[in-house]
Amino acid sequence: MGIHREGGRLFVRIFNSGTLTNILENPKAAANIVDDPALLVKSALSDVEPERFKFIGGFPVLKQALGWVIFDCTCRRGENISVVELSPVRGKINRKAIKPVNRGFNAVIEATVHATRYVGLKEQEYLSKIEYSNTIVQKCGGAREKEAMRLLYELIRYPE
Amino acid sequence: MGIHREGGRLFVRIFNSGTLTNILENPKAAANIVDDPALLVKSALSDVEPERFKFIGGFPVLKQALGWVIFDCTCRRGENISVVELSPVRGKINRKAIKPVNRGFNAVIEATVHATRYVGLKEQEYLSKIEYSNTIVQKCGGAREKEAMRLLYELIRYPE
Repeated sequence: MGIHREGGRLFVRIFNSGTLTNILENPKAAANIVDDPALLVKSALSDVEPERFKFIGGFPVLKQALGWVIFDCTCRRGENISVVELSPVRGKINRKAIKPVNRGFNAVIEATVHATRYVGLKEQEYLSKIEYSNTIVQKCGGAREKEAMRLLYELIRYPE
Repeated sequence: MGIHREGGRLFVRIFNSGTLTNILENPKAAANIVDDPALLVKSALSDVEPERFKFIGGFPVLKQALGWVIFDCTCRRGENISVVELSPVRGKINRKAIKPVNRGFNAVIEATVHATRYVGLKEQEYLSKIEYSNTIVQKCGGAREKEAMRLLYELIRYPE
């Protein structure tokens, strides 16, 4: 999900889900900044293996993250969608880099967003958008992006 | 245009254009790595102001680039499209950063790619794709991305 900044404050909008239940039970969240397309696909559509996390003050963050931020959460519940304000409490930058634009990588992100909707709603529209993103991945992406798309198709056909 | 790496060698595919003529006259090119969405729009659809360049060994690179690489070019001409091999001769990293995914920024890139085709071909299909990208920019982008889209629309309506 995307973090929005408004007037210096940070928010996420969360549909009723396991994520929302987790936050209501333990009002903490972490943002992991990553650049591994397969990991992005996996974390959106499946579960990331426990051994890929380490614990910071009792809260899990991804070992391979370029950086992470842990937040305290304040939740304003809605019927279908809740707004959660994120207050940063701790963060770390592990690695800075210089990254050219990679349309293939970006297309994996778009495909993943559509895939999260497709697995919930099973509407053809989302599958068409995934297919369109895939044409960009095949044209502009490298081996990592193509592998991420293979994983995405596997996960939307046989969700774990 | 995108740089493709195949077996450790770098290539770009260039349609007949001013860029190709430039490379045939002076077989050099620079890749500037930038993260300013309005600059990306401007450089694709218009001309970047001369004062934003500095000269490295007589060749222009963008002052504000996160980094740049200057290449020697070897051109294999085609009737409509030529394949240019890029051999790096000099490069510089000015600034490394940690960048979270920004779907709004990525959508500006997609819109720009479609805009370069739209100004050449004037086909409605490309305008529809720009409109779709714009919905993502308005939802996920920040002030810089929205400003870049305003510039894009201005440039495709009134090309310079």
